[in-house]
Amino acid sequence: MTQLITGSALAPQRLSLPGDINQLDTKLWAGDVTRDDSGELTVSGIKASQLAAEFGTPLMVVSEADFRARARSFKDAFDEAFAQLCGGVDVYYAGKSFLCTEVARWVRQEGLHLDTCTGGELAVAARAGLPGELLGLHGNNKADAEIHRALDMEVGRIIVDSLDELHRLAGIAASRGVTAKVMLRLTPGVHASTHEFIATAHEDQKFGLSLADDGGTSPAARAVATALAADSIDLLGLHCHIGSQIFEPEGFAVAAERLLGFLAAIQSEHGTALPELDLGGGYGIAYTEADTPRPPADIAQAMAAVVRDTCARLEINVPRISIEPGRAISGPAGFTLYSAGTTKDVQVGIENAGTDGHAGHPQSPEATSRRYISVDGGMSDNARPVLYDADYSAVLARAAGSEPALSRVVGKHCESGDIVVRDVYLPADTSSGDLLAVPATGAYCWALASNYNYVPRPPVIAVADGSARVIIRGETEDDLLARDCG
Amino acid sequence: MTQLITGSALAPQRLSLPGDINQLDTKLWAGDVTRDDSGELTVSGIKASQLAAEFGTPLMVVSEADFRARARSFKDAFDEAFAQLCGGVDVYYAGKSFLCTEVARWVRQEGLHLDTCTGGELAVAARAGLPGELLGLHGNNKADAEIHRALDMEVGRIIVDSLDELHRLAGIAASRGVTAKVMLRLTPGVHASTHEFIATAHEDQKFGLSLADDGGTSPAARAVATALAADSIDLLGLHCHIGSQIFEPEGFAVAAERLLGFLAAIQSEHGTALPELDLGGGYGIAYTEADTPRPPADIAQAMAAVVRDTCARLEINVPRISIEPGRAISGPAGFTLYSAGTTKDVQVGIENAGTDGHAGHPQSPEATSRRYISVDGGMSDNARPVLYDADYSAVLARAAGSEPALSRVVGKHCESGDIVVRDVYLPADTSSGDLLAVPATGAYCWALASNYNYVPRPPVIAVADGSARVIIRGETEDDLLARDCG
Repeated sequence: MTQLITGSALAPQRLSLPGDINQLDTKLWAGDVTRDDSGELTVSGIKASQLAAEFGTPLMVVSEADFRARARSFKDAFDEAFAQLCGGVDVYYAGKSFLCTEVARWVRQEGLHLDTCTGGELAVAARAGLPGELLGLHGNNKADAEIHRALDMEVGRIIVDSLDELHRLAGIAASRGVTAKVMLRLTPGVHASTHEFIATAHEDQKFGLSLADDGGTSPAARAVATALAADSIDLLGLHCHIGSQIFEPEGFAVAAERLLGFLAAIQSEHGTALPELDLGGGYGIAYTEADTPRPPADIAQAMAAVVRDTCARLEINVPRISIEPGRAISGPAGFTLYSAGTTKDVQVGIENAGTDGHAGHPQSPEATSRRYISVDGGMSDNARPVLYDADYSAVLARAAGSEPALSRVVGKHCESGDIVVRDVYLPADTSSGDLLAVPATGAYCWALASNYNYVPRPPVIAVADGSARVIIRGETEDDLLARDCG
Repeated sequence: MTQLITGSALAPQRLSLPGDINQLDTKLWAGDVTRDDSGELTVSGIKASQLAAEFGTPLMVVSEADFRARARSFKDAFDEAFAQLCGGVDVYYAGKSFLCTEVARWVRQEGLHLDTCTGGELAVAARAGLPGELLGLHGNNKADAEIHRALDMEVGRIIVDSLDELHRLAGIAASRGVTAKVMLRLTPGVHASTHEFIATAHEDQKFGLSLADDGGTSPAARAVATALAADSIDLLGLHCHIGSQIFEPEGFAVAAERLLGFLAAIQSEHGTALPELDLGGGYGIAYTEADTPRPPADIAQAMAAVVRDTCARLEINVPRISIEPGRAISGPAGFTLYSAGTTKDVQVGIENAGTDGHAGHPQSPEATSRRYISVDGGMSDNARPVLYDADYSAVLARAAGSEPALSRVVGKHCESGDIVVRDVYLPADTSSGDLLAVPATGAYCWALASNYNYVPRPPVIAVADGSARVIIRGETEDDLLARDCG
């Protein structure tokens, strides 16, 4: 039996007491989210309270203008940086971050391609009317049915993940009398996230074909030889994906150098200059004030310089480049509106309450009571805090009526880990019935949503030009019970 | 830039090379799961291959007999241990672990009560025809609508989580002219899991009312006074819940002592002997061979001894005891059947490959290649490995045709963390099309399932008396797109 384990302070270091609690940190929010003259949060001019009244809470809100602007900014920034190298870049929006037919249409209208990874995601693309040539199909374990569907839809590229799959795909394509357009997913031995990356020889993960020598050759080299020899395979090029929430371009640069080196080796061995290189996604976004992502143009220019220099050194032509941003487009475009319910000030034992004498002051970092504010959703609509220990932020939708208080926003699920925002300063007068908005929930929230505790999934609305419409309707209790055979 | 970070061996310490790879570890499986004469996995006499052929994969299988037996064993063991103390125990099955109407009926037929925590779970109970008196309603943030519904259904107890809620419930009940039966959820300062527990004064969590003194009184004491003074509240007793996956009874004992002490204090201060005490759930199960849960009777007897001795010392009558097992009933009753797809031997860099000279041997713990076996489900049907780093096990459904090989079972989702079983020995001849079964997936798998990557949730079948039937039908692509308004 252990006695009380305590921390030195309740607030994490990154969190500073806000100067003006009504001030929105613009990097966390869609571009058309602002506070109106009364101090209320609005999106495209519509008040949060009006959205809640019309659609209820919890409510997932997507700014269509912001989504489109971020999609365009990737396309434009990379096209510009690579224009003279390879005529531009194909930007594949990673549908796994957030997808529905409406979103698929936005992607197409903004000149992007769509990255899918299952038959279900292909079905959404088909329903949205996207031509197959705009689609890529990923997946470490594609079912035969998914391969057939991709061939039916004449997708622009199937990203092959293993030798196993390559043989299977070659066989299926041959039996159908068609040629499958293929990229090979390689593991270049680079893992990146945020400000750091690791470069390794071997990768211990389920995805991809290793570039590492395993006896005079490598899985990647064997796959290339197999693909080039197969009549039913049109090998377009190579693909890699090095991580998530990446803020600095160095990891992409090392991966690009390694893959370009391999492209040169293929050209030297097989006499074939593969025309394409996909450098994947993973572009980071700001979830809290501590995150400082770079604009796409910065990363595009850094990557273009590496590609240009490496190709020159290797004396190969620059392949057509593609990238796969998902979160960086959909994440900041979305936010979640919750209604606050029960609030509770919980006394927390702190033995070493710091040295500045503020112990016990409820608004200082050394506070000995923590304010818990419960909302009407939680881990069912945003699993990332419990899945990845992800940090989020939150604001009170109306203007603050009092000073900030260190708060924890928790969900309504029957699990103590059901935390929405671990640490945030919210006005001390936040109380039941108030609307709270959590920014940057546009990616991997709806996509990962569950019905834990038989809580229905919320609707998703798109807001544009001062009006809001449902793009995915919310679940009802009947929906939840529809498959129950009892 | 950091160079390769390596481990000393691929296999975790807990994992030993199995003597007979066809031998099932019975503590992981439902009682009617066995291998037939051909070596194939069967449940209630039905072959895994027959289930897969009829219902497809992934498939969630529940042994009805095993579920019922585990429910009964809790009821019987606790009734017996507490018979002379308080006439028996009310066992509330924690529906959050796995619930549908059929399961709710099993619970009732076995003489258990049902623990719910949302309006949605109440809806399932209603649909199953359970009388309200058998139900408890939990939740740290009950909506007014959920409180009204509980009162409509005349639930046996509402477990009140905060002073805020107590006031709200008292008001709602008064406005309806009814009396709400209430338990108060307290935080007794005990956190338990597996073989350890921590006892604290303060608890930093969203649930419950603290017993800790915050200035001559405590939130719990104020709630008791409020509840006793409210005409519309019938205060039945106290509740606590100390953790999950608990194998040893000591944590329950400390919590029981603290709550009984508080019951005595209430009796002394208010002259009221509250008749009920709920000691919550958290009873551990075996997910892998490393877990060794005790039989319910052991824990029941240990808890009964503490309750008897403490009540004698405090000179109070023994309250009626209730408990809330969920996982311990539903977990081992279920397993998941997957079809294997792509397999891949991935070379993994190991600098220090151990001292026994086996480096490079694919079946030794120091193997330098890891076998990845992909299945047709993953984190959408079992989020626990990625949520909680939870360990599971797996077996090949057919008889092994070769020696065991250290393997990692991964899902089909587009995420490298999508791991189903991190480390397990599976026959080296396991290949595409083989059926794999993962035991102990009956709890918190279906309940937490998502549609990540537009993967439909699998059906749940109940198997009993040699026949199988669907109790929750699987999702179709139409289901997934039904709410898409595009």
